[in-house]
Amino acid sequence: MNPAESLRLIRERRPLVHHIMNFVAMNDAANATLAIGASPIMALAEEELEEIASAADAIYINIGTPTPLLLSSALKLARLAGSYGKPLLLDPVGVGASSFRRKIAAEVLSTGAVRVLKGNAGEMLALAGKGGLSRGVESSVEEAYEPLERLSKEYGVVAVSTGKTDYVAYGSRLAAVMGGSELFRLITGSGCMLGSVMTSFLAVQESFRAAAEASAAFKLAGELAELKAGRNPGSFRVELLNALHSLHYRDLETLAERIRLLRP
Amino acid sequence: MNPAESLRLIRERRPLVHHIMNFVAMNDAANATLAIGASPIMALAEEELEEIASAADAIYINIGTPTPLLLSSALKLARLAGSYGKPLLLDPVGVGASSFRRKIAAEVLSTGAVRVLKGNAGEMLALAGKGGLSRGVESSVEEAYEPLERLSKEYGVVAVSTGKTDYVAYGSRLAAVMGGSELFRLITGSGCMLGSVMTSFLAVQESFRAAAEASAAFKLAGELAELKAGRNPGSFRVELLNALHSLHYRDLETLAERIRLLRP
Amino acid sequence: MNPAESLRLIRERRPLVHHIMNFVAMNDAANATLAIGASPIMALAEEELEEIASAADAIYINIGTPTPLLLSSALKLARLAGSYGKPLLLDPVGVGASSFRRKIAAEVLSTGAVRVLKGNAGEMLALAGKGGLSRGVESSVEEAYEPLERLSKEYGVVAVSTGKTDYVAYGSRLAAVMGGSELFRLITGSGCMLGSVMTSFLAVQESFRAAAEASAAFKLAGELAELKAGRNPGSFRVELLNALHSLHYRDLETLAERIRLLRP
Repeated sequence: MNPAESLRLIRERRPLVHHIMNFVAMNDAANATLAIGASPIMALAEEELEEIASAADAIYINIGTPTPLLLSSALKLARLAGSYGKPLLLDPVGVGASSFRRKIAAEVLSTGAVRVLKGNAGEMLALAGKGGLSRGVESSVEEAYEPLERLSKEYGVVAVSTGKTDYVAYGSRLAAVMGGSELFRLITGSGCMLGSVMTSFLAVQESFRAAAEASAAFKLAGELAELKAGRNPGSFRVELLNALHSLHYRDLETLAERIRLLRP
Repeated sequence: MNPAESLRLIRERRPLVHHIMNFVAMNDAANATLAIGASPIMALAEEELEEIASAADAIYINIGTPTPLLLSSALKLARLAGSYGKPLLLDPVGVGASSFRRKIAAEVLSTGAVRVLKGNAGEMLALAGKGGLSRGVESSVEEAYEPLERLSKEYGVVAVSTGKTDYVAYGSRLAAVMGGSELFRLITGSGCMLGSVMTSFLAVQESFRAAAEASAAFKLAGELAELKAGRNPGSFRVELLNALHSLHYRDLETLAERIRLLRP
Repeated sequence: MNPAESLRLIRERRPLVHHIMNFVAMNDAANATLAIGASPIMALAEEELEEIASAADAIYINIGTPTPLLLSSALKLARLAGSYGKPLLLDPVGVGASSFRRKIAAEVLSTGAVRVLKGNAGEMLALAGKGGLSRGVESSVEEAYEPLERLSKEYGVVAVSTGKTDYVAYGSRLAAVMGGSELFRLITGSGCMLGSVMTSFLAVQESFRAAAEASAAFKLAGELAELKAGRNPGSFRVELLNALHSLHYRDLETLAERIRLLRP
């Protein structure tokens, strides 16, 4: 693993990341994509999905605030990702909260085009059929790695659960990433911003490594932001974008050490 | 009245607040909900309204940027709030600006499920059939309490008008809340953020008290934010989230004094 | 040219600016409108377009994140702008990225109601049939004035391309506006914020002058924001709103000098 190398590739290539996502965090996600060095485009209408997906370097589908249009567009976009061989990350936001969200996630997964499935601990438990209904889009569970191996094997994806420790699983491989900030939970959209950042890494790097490295880079940015913002969520959101933009390759050199391969 | 007690309850219980709202202020409203200590979920699709509403502790319907989907979902959600006995706050954003918005507000009110009806002074005048068309979503009227008693009795709701002074009416009861910041008018979504905060109070407290206490807490947060931000609207928006998050029970102890019961 | 005079008119009259726009930058655009001194309303539903457009002082159509509803509403709103004689600015966001966006832009232009057509250099090249597909909504071209004269004559509009230098063309007239900040490219929605500001100028001033003056005022605000924010995109976004709000007439007196009439 070498997050610095991947970040350098993102900043050299400025990959185009096609987003379909919830209305709450669109602005934060677009700004996070720019801050890490990639180029975001949000496009939801079926009329333009193919043109944009075929030009994109990676695709991010996030199912928060779902609507019937999002359901049909997400499915179509996942199939396009498959046809064009574009790496696809699925973020099953609030999947524990309704059967409608579980249906969208299941249909997108069933296309076989998803390369990375990333949710918070509660969402990954819900997808694995455990943990019952979540309360809203936040997770009360602090971390979860048990369901990841099964989800990874069932869907052939890199499965990532975020929380106090992030876990990244691919088949029987498992990595853990520590660190980050308690303040991630105090702002909306921090998971979506990570989704954009991870998809940017996915545009330039193979999936298991992209997921672990993006997780490490995002946790570092959170720590740097907390140093500036203290316990203030409004300031933390501002400083998180600043930190993502100013991540130095030098900071990241040491980051590889935080990624612990529990099962290489 | 004791805003500190209600705030303590919010932070202990982390009530889930189901939002249907405009696209402009979704992010600010979600962040305000988190900052006050509650848990937001935005869900608009009819497919998931019942599951989410039945799990929620309180419901917030805000009719800014209305669409046909918002109209049908808002109505359905109001009826669900009635069936499940969930407290519901209606925020008739820009109701003076179009007959479409007046129709949505009237239909939601006609369900009988609304417990708190909160708008700015111009919106409350428009709902009462006074004041003519507003210009946009802002109010040129600084405060209004005259229409509140009638609106409260007509719809059986706690009626709140916000402005330089906020007024809270329930039948013949009337409270006034002073203070706040001129900068609320310089950022979009401050009324929507108050809507989220007031619905969070409504999740843990009876309606009249919840409305008056939330108004007092929000005005205090605005004052604290202005102290930090000066006359700068971009900074004020950041500091308002910081202030909502860092409201101390001690600050709030003195707040009860600002709530003046004009007619107890 | 005299941007200070136009800004004074905006702050005296608080023109109502009706927006139809993308979901990503709605919040930033509404805040930019308030910061410059005008009053924003976002309204997309066909049910309320006529009432709101007829009350508005100027209209802003921005085609980012297009949907079928945006297409039909944008067309209807453009025709209403024509009928009611309201100045209309079209912002063809990402028009190089899909034929769906080109179709919307072409149909809105064909109404004959557009007074100002403003895009980044890549978008204006794409509209002129040059430059091929853009990557996303950003422009890799730093500036472009060649296609403006043709676009201006073809559609009878003031044509504006933004970039390192902004160019404003009307028939054979051409102005250039220098300055601004490199950080505009590091945040999403800066072009949309300029769209809101330019439409606010258009509400109080003739089109060619409004476009050039708004460009100059926005570039100055960007420079002032960069002085405060350094190279930090999160802070820059906050400071840009602060700077728009605190633009002094005195600052603007000197601004007229930056607007160079290349062909008067």
